[in-house]
Amino acid sequence: MSVPQAKQMRRAYGFDEVAIVPGNLTVNPAMTEVSFRIDQLEFALPIMASAMDAVVDPEFAIVFSKLGGLAVLNLEGVQTRYEDPAGVLEEIAATSQEESTGLLQRAYATPIKPELIGERIRQIKSADAVCAVSCTPANTKAFAPIAKEAGADVLVVQSTVTTARHNSYSEKGLTFPELVEQMAPMPVVVGNTVSFGACKELMETGVAAVQVGVGPGSACTSREVLGIGVPQVTATMDCAAARDQYYRESGRYVPIITDGGIRSGGDLCKAFAAGADAVMLGSILAACEEAPGRGHHWGMATPNADLPRGMRVPVGVDTTLQKVIHGPTSRTNGTENLIGALRTAMSMCGARAIRDFQQAELVVAPSIKTEGKQIQRAQG
Amino acid sequence: MSVPQAKQMRRAYGFDEVAIVPGNLTVNPAMTEVSFRIDQLEFALPIMASAMDAVVDPEFAIVFSKLGGLAVLNLEGVQTRYEDPAGVLEEIAATSQEESTGLLQRAYATPIKPELIGERIRQIKSADAVCAVSCTPANTKAFAPIAKEAGADVLVVQSTVTTARHNSYSEKGLTFPELVEQMAPMPVVVGNTVSFGACKELMETGVAAVQVGVGPGSACTSREVLGIGVPQVTATMDCAAARDQYYRESGRYVPIITDGGIRSGGDLCKAFAAGADAVMLGSILAACEEAPGRGHHWGMATPNADLPRGMRVPVGVDTTLQKVIHGPTSRTNGTENLIGALRTAMSMCGARAIRDFQQAELVVAPSIKTEGKQIQRAQG
Amino acid sequence: MSVPQAKQMRRAYGFDEVAIVPGNLTVNPAMTEVSFRIDQLEFALPIMASAMDAVVDPEFAIVFSKLGGLAVLNLEGVQTRYEDPAGVLEEIAATSQEESTGLLQRAYATPIKPELIGERIRQIKSADAVCAVSCTPANTKAFAPIAKEAGADVLVVQSTVTTARHNSYSEKGLTFPELVEQMAPMPVVVGNTVSFGACKELMETGVAAVQVGVGPGSACTSREVLGIGVPQVTATMDCAAARDQYYRESGRYVPIITDGGIRSGGDLCKAFAAGADAVMLGSILAACEEAPGRGHHWGMATPNADLPRGMRVPVGVDTTLQKVIHGPTSRTNGTENLIGALRTAMSMCGARAIRDFQQAELVVAPSIKTEGKQIQRAQG
Amino acid sequence: MSVPQAKQMRRAYGFDEVAIVPGNLTVNPAMTEVSFRIDQLEFALPIMASAMDAVVDPEFAIVFSKLGGLAVLNLEGVQTRYEDPAGVLEEIAATSQEESTGLLQRAYATPIKPELIGERIRQIKSADAVCAVSCTPANTKAFAPIAKEAGADVLVVQSTVTTARHNSYSEKGLTFPELVEQMAPMPVVVGNTVSFGACKELMETGVAAVQVGVGPGSACTSREVLGIGVPQVTATMDCAAARDQYYRESGRYVPIITDGGIRSGGDLCKAFAAGADAVMLGSILAACEEAPGRGHHWGMATPNADLPRGMRVPVGVDTTLQKVIHGPTSRTNGTENLIGALRTAMSMCGARAIRDFQQAELVVAPSIKTEGKQIQRAQG
Repeated sequence: MSVPQAKQMRRAYGFDEVAIVPGNLTVNPAMTEVSFRIDQLEFALPIMASAMDAVVDPEFAIVFSKLGGLAVLNLEGVQTRYEDPAGVLEEIAATSQEESTGLLQRAYATPIKPELIGERIRQIKSADAVCAVSCTPANTKAFAPIAKEAGADVLVVQSTVTTARHNSYSEKGLTFPELVEQMAPMPVVVGNTVSFGACKELMETGVAAVQVGVGPGSACTSREVLGIGVPQVTATMDCAAARDQYYRESGRYVPIITDGGIRSGGDLCKAFAAGADAVMLGSILAACEEAPGRGHHWGMATPNADLPRGMRVPVGVDTTLQKVIHGPTSRTNGTENLIGALRTAMSMCGARAIRDFQQAELVVAPSIKTEGKQIQRAQG
Repeated sequence: MSVPQAKQMRRAYGFDEVAIVPGNLTVNPAMTEVSFRIDQLEFALPIMASAMDAVVDPEFAIVFSKLGGLAVLNLEGVQTRYEDPAGVLEEIAATSQEESTGLLQRAYATPIKPELIGERIRQIKSADAVCAVSCTPANTKAFAPIAKEAGADVLVVQSTVTTARHNSYSEKGLTFPELVEQMAPMPVVVGNTVSFGACKELMETGVAAVQVGVGPGSACTSREVLGIGVPQVTATMDCAAARDQYYRESGRYVPIITDGGIRSGGDLCKAFAAGADAVMLGSILAACEEAPGRGHHWGMATPNADLPRGMRVPVGVDTTLQKVIHGPTSRTNGTENLIGALRTAMSMCGARAIRDFQQAELVVAPSIKTEGKQIQRAQG
Repeated sequence: MSVPQAKQMRRAYGFDEVAIVPGNLTVNPAMTEVSFRIDQLEFALPIMASAMDAVVDPEFAIVFSKLGGLAVLNLEGVQTRYEDPAGVLEEIAATSQEESTGLLQRAYATPIKPELIGERIRQIKSADAVCAVSCTPANTKAFAPIAKEAGADVLVVQSTVTTARHNSYSEKGLTFPELVEQMAPMPVVVGNTVSFGACKELMETGVAAVQVGVGPGSACTSREVLGIGVPQVTATMDCAAARDQYYRESGRYVPIITDGGIRSGGDLCKAFAAGADAVMLGSILAACEEAPGRGHHWGMATPNADLPRGMRVPVGVDTTLQKVIHGPTSRTNGTENLIGALRTAMSMCGARAIRDFQQAELVVAPSIKTEGKQIQRAQG
Repeated sequence: MSVPQAKQMRRAYGFDEVAIVPGNLTVNPAMTEVSFRIDQLEFALPIMASAMDAVVDPEFAIVFSKLGGLAVLNLEGVQTRYEDPAGVLEEIAATSQEESTGLLQRAYATPIKPELIGERIRQIKSADAVCAVSCTPANTKAFAPIAKEAGADVLVVQSTVTTARHNSYSEKGLTFPELVEQMAPMPVVVGNTVSFGACKELMETGVAAVQVGVGPGSACTSREVLGIGVPQVTATMDCAAARDQYYRESGRYVPIITDGGIRSGGDLCKAFAAGADAVMLGSILAACEEAPGRGHHWGMATPNADLPRGMRVPVGVDTTLQKVIHGPTSRTNGTENLIGALRTAMSMCGARAIRDFQQAELVVAPSIKTEGKQIQRAQG
């Protein structure tokens, strides 16, 4: 009796499972070019800072913008729920690991104060920094106009999974084509998504960029709680294929931003080699002195009142934004001098631009090496 | 010299090795519908409680039924061997891990008292709860009529591996077609099975539902002792294919129940995405205050006098049925608010009904993420 | 530039990576038949005891023969180097792990006393036990006639890798066809081998059975030291294919014995499902009270003077031959009641005879389950 | 909607993931022949010592040459920066793990003294040893003539990734064809590379040998920092294919040297079975009394001022060159008697010469065996 195959499963790969193959040509690292563009906005660095309360507050956004990156301020976190968020951030940092999820749930039960939205944005803009803000699809209709009015430069509409088509009993919210039109010329970035089809449909709504990643973040437990998630290398490859296909069809290039799971320069380089135009960093940045998390990191899925899908994770405070982005460093674990790492990897692949680096060869190569090394040392 | 391939092996996958891909469409979780049907019986929840003495006693069955699920009382466990099982359950909970298998073997050497079968069933029915009971194929001829007489609603005939065709020296037992006819209109559920062919043959006997799973349970050591077992995602997919094929041939839809190995909401969601109509839970429920196991869990393979194929495992008592099924929760490991997790995952896949969710895409995605996170934190 | 594929690698599988799929038919365990035959010799059990000094001495061989199995006495170990081996065995058991390899090298530097060969054999035969003895190819010319003369029933010619064709500077040794003829009617078993071609060539020399396995034994480090070895499931499948092919060509059925790496009933069952006619056990038997190893286990590759390829491993002494072979047991890790496990697994696959069980379906199913269970318990 | 596959990934394999299959023919180890040739230079052993400061100084080079191997002295390490390197080597050995990278960065900031280049070379040559030296491509124009003048026998031009085509803003350096011509008849070895195309292009420049390996070394963290690297078995196979293809096209045989990641005799044997003509060892040799590393090991990527891609790893000092190369040994982990291991493995594959051994069959066989053994022992 032959078995009809009801369902086929593709193998999906994460950062730990692949490696970049050096090229047949090499270039000098100084010849590499790493800028990133969203519509008319150009950034010196292809790095965004996650819209997470442990990573971005207005001060962080200003410093990060001066360095050439783009930080996203979450409009639904402590910055807009508390006049002075320092107290609640201290409290979150001080609580035990065991109590942390409960505390976060209570802390985020305080309602959002719409007047703080404008205040935070103006705080960033007054320092001549580029200002990106994020809200969930459910709040976009209410918050997006406030953000535009206050002078935000980029609007990010973000939830765990966002699609161009959403069915709901509630009154009709804004569709993305309507939102894009209403916000113009401010670019609208949406996320997150992981598959070719869903990504391409989002691009077809006219958005300026798409964030890629469901499940991989270091503070995220969607895989444990919901079973949902796609490892980042495959997610990035599929969405890069969607971007390229949409570009062939429409002539419009919509960059993709790999968001979540990047823990080192090696991961960052693999994201680009898999097809990313930019990356979004969370936990690595949360460990900087400039970050508001005080040595802790958590995402927006943790405060969920009924079903938290993330947790507070300890990251320590042991570096600075300058060191993380540009070095120099004495660390050998890939958590500092990310731009140096990117330029070096590009040089080894003969890639002058990110678009060239996206063509680099990747192999499936599980990182069992580390273990092997440890065995060797123990035997030494 | 070419090597004739004597034997081909398919790759089989377990929960830890796959992940659900979000859909191109999303729906509001409130719009999802999760009921489950066995013949004419409809249940609000697609969750059954395992016929294990650490999980289900009459009180548990009543509470679980009120919540909308279906608990199965084992007719060959302590409930029918002991007038008052509290004593032996205390003893099992109090013994050391080392002594536990031996104690279980002795405890289950006490003969079954047929009169207790009816008593336990009437206890459940008198509370207006739905009553499901289970026995092994060898005892079905003797116990099934008693169960029917006492008013049980569902009969589960269950052993580690049950097939439609069984060869034995003993006098001919009931065949499943005969049993189905004799028990009608009470539905007969059989299990366990894992393959397309064996599952389809069971369906062809006229049974009302089939339980899927050999080897994966947390208290089961069939893989170590016998080498037998199929990881649950593949087993569910193969049996779902059998169900669909049988439906196409016969027009009768026989639901499959994924039984064993579900340790979190993520696993539960993957079971449905792999094709399950319902799931059967053991260890997760054994950790509830309402469970009779007193913080321990064991299966019916452990008391085997000659060759135990399971062991008592500690699960603690740290939650309630209400929290496990409906939350709310502050846990982020997926062991509470399972229905919330199911509805959320369905919403992310654009699935309004379980039948839609069965079509969700799965990818092979080993859960090495956790390890990576830990590395990152240590480096933090 | 396309890459010419210089070399293809097949995936090879070990016991931990596969599982047996239950059948569409089941039989009563009492109906299963597990005997094993080498030429005209029939054994009640398909289990051999390894020719290792920690496992087999004359007393062990006698007990094991009474149980229905076949133990092989090593003619190049302590039993033939020492008049009274008890002293050296005590010494090996008493030394530290660090010193153990060096001590073994010195202990085995004592020359073999040919007169002890006959004495050990007569000791076994005088108890009416079946007597199998082993020697390396290099010593076969000298020792085989002594063994025959002393009344041995089976001769095993064994080294890490044995082939039908061997090139050497030394004077021509016996070829296998010559040896088989010289020893007749005493059956000659040879080993070890792992591949289709090498196995079939050995069968073509006229030997009575072939031992399969290079590298997997628990006391073997050939993989670390030499890089050589094939996981046992694939090795068994390939050699089973050679056996079947040779049978089709010649009409003579040469059984294969899976030797090494079997640590539980599950592994044992998988060996048969992969095609074995019998299995050879080492470390499991070394843990029996009857074994001479005193809680330790080592192989013949360890005493090598220049390049030991194995080590003494602690196994403890915590069971008896009776329990390991026939139970009953309260263990749930598969190390006791191996025949009960074999009959149960056969029954679940509907296999009445070993030849049927060899047709059982196997799936690739990594044993990550255990880890998952532990995670669950820790969270419980 | 079908997903256009933007990028395919091959599976690449490391030493831990493969095993060598014994052959259908065996030979006596004494009949094997293991010499190695670079142009007109013939070496008794196919083993090179890495151009790392913890492995090779002039004294080590002399001893290693007498044993029949070829040690490479790094012209850009402490030997040419310090008149008396003993002090800085002591300091590196004495510092804490935490401070080690920073200290290495400072120690290697001392400029290279060109006059020491000649001195070190003459020191080696004066002992009648073969002298190989290495420098990076950037310094080759300056240092290569000095080395030739001083009497070096082999020039190695080495960086993490070296290609035949390199783009740079700086004034044109020597191309490899020019360098080969200028150095003749001294052979030029280049590295490192890992892919078919890049390797073949290097061979086409006329170099005498190519070093294979990016990322696998025990002191290397390129995978973590840059994401770049190819596991050694696949890298060796691909470069062996390039060598064979180039030989077919040109008639010139350019040997490949597998450099990095070899931690045992098993790994060494697998490198040859994958196609290597020689291997380059680092950490194994650093553990010898003769090595200058004083129990530590580090590579040339660690002292990088901005982005170190390696670290000091402890290896201990617990053996001698004689034992590592020729034994005898009582170790069973494969770190001593490497030539004995190589000859034994060759004998089991029926290989008289390295060129035969390169044809041995390899299987993919993850080394999960060790873990299994440990489980067994714990249960014993």
